[in-house]
Amino acid sequence: MQYTDNTIKKLSKTQLINLLERPYTNSPDLGRLVKKVFTDIKMEGDKSLAYYTYLFDKIKLTHFTIEAAQKEAGLRTLDPGLKEAIQLAKKNIEKFHRSQILPSEKIEISDGLVCWREDRPIEKVGLYIPGGTAPLFSTVLMLGIPAQIAGCKQIVLCTPPDQNGEINPAILYAAQLTGIKSIYMIGGIQAIAAMTFGTESIPKVDKIFGPGNQYVTAAKQESMNYGIAIDMPAGPSELLIIADESAEPDFIAADLLSQAEHGSDSQVVLLSDNSKIIQKSLDALRKQLEVLPRRQIAEEALKNSHAILLKNIDECIRLSNDYAPEHLIMAIKNAKTKIKFISNAGSVFIGNYSCESAGDYASGTNHTLPTNGYARNYSGLSVESFTKKLTFQEISKEGMKQIGPAIELMAEAEQLMAHKNAVSIRLKS
Amino acid sequence: MQYTDNTIKKLSKTQLINLLERPYTNSPDLGRLVKKVFTDIKMEGDKSLAYYTYLFDKIKLTHFTIEAAQKEAGLRTLDPGLKEAIQLAKKNIEKFHRSQILPSEKIEISDGLVCWREDRPIEKVGLYIPGGTAPLFSTVLMLGIPAQIAGCKQIVLCTPPDQNGEINPAILYAAQLTGIKSIYMIGGIQAIAAMTFGTESIPKVDKIFGPGNQYVTAAKQESMNYGIAIDMPAGPSELLIIADESAEPDFIAADLLSQAEHGSDSQVVLLSDNSKIIQKSLDALRKQLEVLPRRQIAEEALKNSHAILLKNIDECIRLSNDYAPEHLIMAIKNAKTKIKFISNAGSVFIGNYSCESAGDYASGTNHTLPTNGYARNYSGLSVESFTKKLTFQEISKEGMKQIGPAIELMAEAEQLMAHKNAVSIRLKS
Repeated sequence: MQYTDNTIKKLSKTQLINLLERPYTNSPDLGRLVKKVFTDIKMEGDKSLAYYTYLFDKIKLTHFTIEAAQKEAGLRTLDPGLKEAIQLAKKNIEKFHRSQILPSEKIEISDGLVCWREDRPIEKVGLYIPGGTAPLFSTVLMLGIPAQIAGCKQIVLCTPPDQNGEINPAILYAAQLTGIKSIYMIGGIQAIAAMTFGTESIPKVDKIFGPGNQYVTAAKQESMNYGIAIDMPAGPSELLIIADESAEPDFIAADLLSQAEHGSDSQVVLLSDNSKIIQKSLDALRKQLEVLPRRQIAEEALKNSHAILLKNIDECIRLSNDYAPEHLIMAIKNAKTKIKFISNAGSVFIGNYSCESAGDYASGTNHTLPTNGYARNYSGLSVESFTKKLTFQEISKEGMKQIGPAIELMAEAEQLMAHKNAVSIRLKS
Repeated sequence: MQYTDNTIKKLSKTQLINLLERPYTNSPDLGRLVKKVFTDIKMEGDKSLAYYTYLFDKIKLTHFTIEAAQKEAGLRTLDPGLKEAIQLAKKNIEKFHRSQILPSEKIEISDGLVCWREDRPIEKVGLYIPGGTAPLFSTVLMLGIPAQIAGCKQIVLCTPPDQNGEINPAILYAAQLTGIKSIYMIGGIQAIAAMTFGTESIPKVDKIFGPGNQYVTAAKQESMNYGIAIDMPAGPSELLIIADESAEPDFIAADLLSQAEHGSDSQVVLLSDNSKIIQKSLDALRKQLEVLPRRQIAEEALKNSHAILLKNIDECIRLSNDYAPEHLIMAIKNAKTKIKFISNAGSVFIGNYSCESAGDYASGTNHTLPTNGYARNYSGLSVESFTKKLTFQEISKEGMKQIGPAIELMAEAEQLMAHKNAVSIRLKS
């Protein structure tokens, strides 16, 4: 982790932003490969799906669903303590996400003219849960719970099987808890293509959610060319901490590492007005790093990471806003008085006991958040991500009399006479 | 307009959907051209902007802003009646969009654990207003008003100048009313590229809004490769009307034409359970078409358009949901009892006096809506389109004691030990 004392070095805003440039570069151009897989799966469906699963994942699958007996056996092996933990997380996530549904209010714009909005679920949604070394069952909760609350009619979950053609029981359990019945053992580009077009086995969906590697990211982008919506652009996870003298260096170090262990392309940033806190945090970080199982990954990530001493906390907040972090920990006293100055961040953790891990798993907020600076222009996942808002209006004859003449004038000025006539014919009647 | 009596023909659901296939095909691959313009404007800024404005629009511009004197002169020529009409529209649109801001509520998930969301404006937004034959000042209102209500700090408006290097005074007036100060006379791919990268004259933005032709659409898609967000995918405008015996054929005909005059690739659909209403509407349409200034365009659009007789109104609603129209007029009695069955539509107009023109201009709802079937998975524009939601959480030591053990178990099961440690170190303290 590189240390910059900017009270001495006095880098400009632009220089600081350049210093914090993310190590992430856009996915390599996988365009040709992705297009080939999409074309094949569109044409040949399941057959092609099996072919690519063998080609990419080295697994021979004759079917993509999990048999009931296999599922039951898997669920029986799951540790009861972990089950309870997942239940608690589910309860909290559900409580927070339920609060996101707000009643629709009818607005009387003028006499005889009422407008309002109503939410409708996106009917068919696809959830992608990556495979790899760790079974990301927490992401099943983070995608499945808002989908269920939104009332999506069809929730499809795709996740790659392990080498034995099986799915981790914790994923199965999280899916069961959130009412997801359609689980398919496919991953990668081919899973996204299958949900884009539909195959004999896999249903076509309207919107695709979930994290993934560069292949999945490129495939999600390609799906948008076929009328599919996606949750948000993807990039490696990141954390920025603003700390003052009231912060706990051990906690800061633990939080920085919890982010750094995600991947070698992760980035962590520590901003402070207090050089001792920075120094102590970096010392603690070195100690904690030594015993970390994912030490190598974290070390790589720390190479791209920075601790910066600034003049005061307001400067820290300004730089954080320019960086637009996915996660922001505010380990400062009176953090609440500073909240209103936070303009760009995915999720904000206030005080010494609000660690990112809490939001990653169990506090209630969603962990699917905008990365790579997208906190400037995207929200994290919420129930709204699984719904759309329809506008409604009801105009009476009286109401039309009041706004009709204005519409006639405006339509005529835009040279759209049939627009005008639709009003004139009503005013004349 | 083709007539299908499906009570006799008995087309299946799939056959009906195929019948209603939109004439719109994806933009031709403008990829190479768009990439060239983007690269040049990124490298050469204003110089390249002037070059492409001359190349594409045949206008030599030495600067891209409007001089104050020119603006004042333009505004003086504007008809006072039209000004009043625009003011009324502004008032209504503002009233409806203001109602979209809802207070944030703090949710106590459990003792010592509070989560909530807060809205923040997207700081820099770019509004694109197309040129062409008609000055789309109504779109300035539809984009500018929610941007202003959201509190966007920098609102940039780009619109191509006419052959005299001028901008229509109605556009200037609508911009003035909505507090937009940064107006630039550029259009097409080069305008979108300029807002993507920023040039000496044009500020870089975070999100780009607004309609446009195939060049603008392709450029907006390209901007997403550079971290820019866009409002929604674009396609030609469309209208579906569900009518029963209570509908007014003259009104139906006028509404169908108001949509058909938009462009030769527009599509209109009339669904009814009453053959007489369809017949009378088609008769009225032929009569009204004869005197329409944009008759040729409307006639082209009507070639892709359909009137379909179905068994009952519920069948009409089901087919409408499958089609997912941008605009839906429900000219039926007891429309309100049917609203809950509408699952996919951009904006819904209820009863004989709620014509689409009202929503296009002045009733209060936004006219920037999902087309081409995107009403399945996108909302129309709202204040939320100009904001993002940040999540916050505050956990006390006591709160951490309650959820900490669950987080530890889950993190360990996902093999993320640093995530676990961030909790353990707090529980131990």
